[in-house]
Amino acid sequence: MATFPLNAWYAAAYDVELGRSLLPRTICNQKIVFYRREDGTPVALEDACWHRLLPLSMGRLEGDEVVCGYHGLVFNGSGRCTHMPSQESVNPSACVRAYPVLQKHRFVWVWPGDPALADPALVPDLHWNDSPGWTGDGKLIHVNCDYRLVIDNLMDLTHETFVHGGSIGDRAVAEAPFVATHGDRFATVTRWMEGIQPPPFWAGQIRHARGYSGAVDRWQIIRFEAPCTVTIDVGVAEAGTGARGSEGVPGDRSRGVNGFVLNTITPETDKTCHYFWAFARNYCLHEQRVTHELREGVARIFREDESVLEAQQRAIDDHPGYTFYNLNIDAGAMWARRLIDRRIAAEASPAAAGRAIPIRPAA
Amino acid sequence: MATFPLNAWYAAAYDVELGRSLLPRTICNQKIVFYRREDGTPVALEDACWHRLLPLSMGRLEGDEVVCGYHGLVFNGSGRCTHMPSQESVNPSACVRAYPVLQKHRFVWVWPGDPALADPALVPDLHWNDSPGWTGDGKLIHVNCDYRLVIDNLMDLTHETFVHGGSIGDRAVAEAPFVATHGDRFATVTRWMEGIQPPPFWAGQIRHARGYSGAVDRWQIIRFEAPCTVTIDVGVAEAGTGARGSEGVPGDRSRGVNGFVLNTITPETDKTCHYFWAFARNYCLHEQRVTHELREGVARIFREDESVLEAQQRAIDDHPGYTFYNLNIDAGAMWARRLIDRRIAAEASPAAAGRAIPIRPAA
Amino acid sequence: MATFPLNAWYAAAYDVELGRSLLPRTICNQKIVFYRREDGTPVALEDACWHRLLPLSMGRLEGDEVVCGYHGLVFNGSGRCTHMPSQESVNPSACVRAYPVLQKHRFVWVWPGDPALADPALVPDLHWNDSPGWTGDGKLIHVNCDYRLVIDNLMDLTHETFVHGGSIGDRAVAEAPFVATHGDRFATVTRWMEGIQPPPFWAGQIRHARGYSGAVDRWQIIRFEAPCTVTIDVGVAEAGTGARGSEGVPGDRSRGVNGFVLNTITPETDKTCHYFWAFARNYCLHEQRVTHELREGVARIFREDESVLEAQQRAIDDHPGYTFYNLNIDAGAMWARRLIDRRIAAEASPAAAGRAIPIRPAA
Repeated sequence: MATFPLNAWYAAAYDVELGRSLLPRTICNQKIVFYRREDGTPVALEDACWHRLLPLSMGRLEGDEVVCGYHGLVFNGSGRCTHMPSQESVNPSACVRAYPVLQKHRFVWVWPGDPALADPALVPDLHWNDSPGWTGDGKLIHVNCDYRLVIDNLMDLTHETFVHGGSIGDRAVAEAPFVATHGDRFATVTRWMEGIQPPPFWAGQIRHARGYSGAVDRWQIIRFEAPCTVTIDVGVAEAGTGARGSEGVPGDRSRGVNGFVLNTITPETDKTCHYFWAFARNYCLHEQRVTHELREGVARIFREDESVLEAQQRAIDDHPGYTFYNLNIDAGAMWARRLIDRRIAAEASPAAAGRAIPIRPAA
Repeated sequence: MATFPLNAWYAAAYDVELGRSLLPRTICNQKIVFYRREDGTPVALEDACWHRLLPLSMGRLEGDEVVCGYHGLVFNGSGRCTHMPSQESVNPSACVRAYPVLQKHRFVWVWPGDPALADPALVPDLHWNDSPGWTGDGKLIHVNCDYRLVIDNLMDLTHETFVHGGSIGDRAVAEAPFVATHGDRFATVTRWMEGIQPPPFWAGQIRHARGYSGAVDRWQIIRFEAPCTVTIDVGVAEAGTGARGSEGVPGDRSRGVNGFVLNTITPETDKTCHYFWAFARNYCLHEQRVTHELREGVARIFREDESVLEAQQRAIDDHPGYTFYNLNIDAGAMWARRLIDRRIAAEASPAAAGRAIPIRPAA
Repeated sequence: MATFPLNAWYAAAYDVELGRSLLPRTICNQKIVFYRREDGTPVALEDACWHRLLPLSMGRLEGDEVVCGYHGLVFNGSGRCTHMPSQESVNPSACVRAYPVLQKHRFVWVWPGDPALADPALVPDLHWNDSPGWTGDGKLIHVNCDYRLVIDNLMDLTHETFVHGGSIGDRAVAEAPFVATHGDRFATVTRWMEGIQPPPFWAGQIRHARGYSGAVDRWQIIRFEAPCTVTIDVGVAEAGTGARGSEGVPGDRSRGVNGFVLNTITPETDKTCHYFWAFARNYCLHEQRVTHELREGVARIFREDESVLEAQQRAIDDHPGYTFYNLNIDAGAMWARRLIDRRIAAEASPAAAGRAIPIRPAA
């Protein structure tokens, strides 16, 4: 049983990671080599020479083509072999798989499934990562767990209290009521904590950005976009200034500070993943120190998660067939899992599932 | 085919290892977390949270209860969940397994089998470890082999000549005759070497303790207690002073020095074990230097065994189905293995075996 | 399906590696301990004591016999047990396997198959390694790949252009025509590059040895001897001085420099090998600096191969069932593989294959 759908855009690299050299990376159990053409457009090829399977990433770039580091076969960006050593003609069957690949919102995205379905409009919405009015930075970490454990983790922030008690967590989060909703492609968990004393992290942010130190209205709006992207709209505003808004209509957040934790988690294998995250904010846009501090602060928090996630993966491996029970706090993760499962099932039986789950771009 | 019975007390920790923090340890393939309640009594729980399987040992103690380090579920010392985050009621099925556990003779013992059979009187007899008139010290080492290879090793001290030639071994041991006997639960190997020159180790002990440097009567009385405890009564006395005694009646050892090598080897997995040992003596009781020297001396000897045992385990893995032949020297080990096998068989078919092997406390 | 024949002499050690101590080495998946008797003749025994399987290599030599490091059983060079501890008689079945073993051309050779077939005349021809008129040196490296990948590598020197571009490789090799021939036991690939500018390595050699710096005739004559030995006759001579000779008759190489790359690759397991190589030359025989320089230069080149070969092995493991296509350049490797396959098939069905592939000494 697959652990991920193949027909999806997966983040393969930060834009700045990819240049004029060969970058090997495993995505969804597939070894892929990435590079940029001279015009900057990204290429993604199967990372195994057609001839003797040597990883092409051990070869070298020559213009827009890759030369294998063993016998010198040359492949172009479409994966077609254009030169063989010691012979005039090239075997027409000689090629390696080329993957749809594009760049958007500061990530290079690859589509490991059916190329005919690779609609650029389906790239997950992470626009805060390169939009005016927002600034921030992020990292890529490698985690030895099924990517879905990271999703579970992000869909329930109760864990902040216990895993991150020293920084962002406090009892308020674990005890605050929340609302979980879902659609065909999204699942959200919304939690408002109104009129509370902010935890140390947020107290510092609002004091620095707005010079305010009193009670706040705090929010966490977690939005999952199938199969593996989670954005978390977080922030605090002066208590009672209307940040919450009314049903469906966003409130006035001008008296607050707002950030988005952007997460997209790409399966490397069934039990390991590439976890790309960034923290974008809408305040103190030009203070590099704040950017630096936030990036390192979030990195510290995610290292705490990493240790929990990897221990959890080992424990799951030790308990094959274990039946998991859901608590109230698992509502969001449960819906995320269902949307993932439907996508996987759709690929196992496309006809039936195609009707039930139209994959369409976000409106 | 199981390599160990489950219905037995296994040493899980030295008493001093266990305090007011969470100690994870795998016993008989089961991951267990140990801690002490505020009153000092030990607790042993399955080391996996009921909810998402995170090891409870990654959480923290709160009074007599454990708080899971992921979502904050709380379990008491009986394994029952007493608190869940963000909800008022607790799912009544929420619990983790609690194991019978007790402390005796300086070890914490756990019973991984049927709790109804966990009779405290069945704890192996290692009373020399905390009795007046005896003193000593020991260690815990981790060995990458089936615990039964350690038993084999201890049941035949011929190996001293070849593995420990530089310290306690000499030709006298390999060539001395021995007597092997057994019962339902015990197997013994007795070897007397009378009127010999003591090997360097014992020569030093008797000279220091009794100011004696001549010929000695030397004994090794190995007693196996199923399934994994071996005590070795060792010592030397002035030759001809009657240390041996007559059939069944211990002799006069007042002109000698006597020690007990106490060994209990707990299966960690089928191919790794926790080896607890101590050396207790009845002489120079208040000389801390002697205690220290003996502990480190024995530790050095056991490291030689460790290297042999781990090589042997790898060799056995390399030769599946190999038929082992027994030599005369294997008589004791052979009986120990039979008693272990009967206990394992008894658990596979309790009705039949229950009659043949009553498990009862030592008289 | 076996990856190597068992009825063959395999290099187990350089002559100087083996002395009066116990050398453990795995050959063709078999753990073997090697040592020399007091008279210098080599012995090869199964490296596992008959009694409890401890590697005999953990014991010690006593005269021409090995004493097991656990219980002291003694085995002679024929593998027969000659002593058991604590007993007068020795179980007549107590023995370990002894392998045919001999020394020739500076290697110790072992025959892991049927001892009745171990004809000393079948040792591969590596006489340049200890013949008058030749000098050189070599090394043993351990490579994590099927030994046949090393054979493939040596049978096609096109790879020099791409793997060793900085030293011996240039476009001339990849583009030069070659001739591949084969017999029952040998396969050869001959490549002449006449009237060319020598690559840096050969330019340096001929300048130093002959004071010549012009155009050269260059040759590479690769000879495979089944199942795992490859000699490469390499060199350059002043262009147009007749080095090539005519069909079947060697030319005049007196105006050139000649070397032999001697390679014999012994399977350790199905996916690892011991790669013994040496470089022998017929010029500057007494210049130790040249010997040193050549040995280290070749070692550097082979490390480049090692990295490619190990990556290729991992890639093959990742692509079970992959269909490999041969290019023109693969002709020599293809024949080498066929000769190996026939030897393996012959052992699977000796009657049929025995006729087709008489194993006989080189003429």
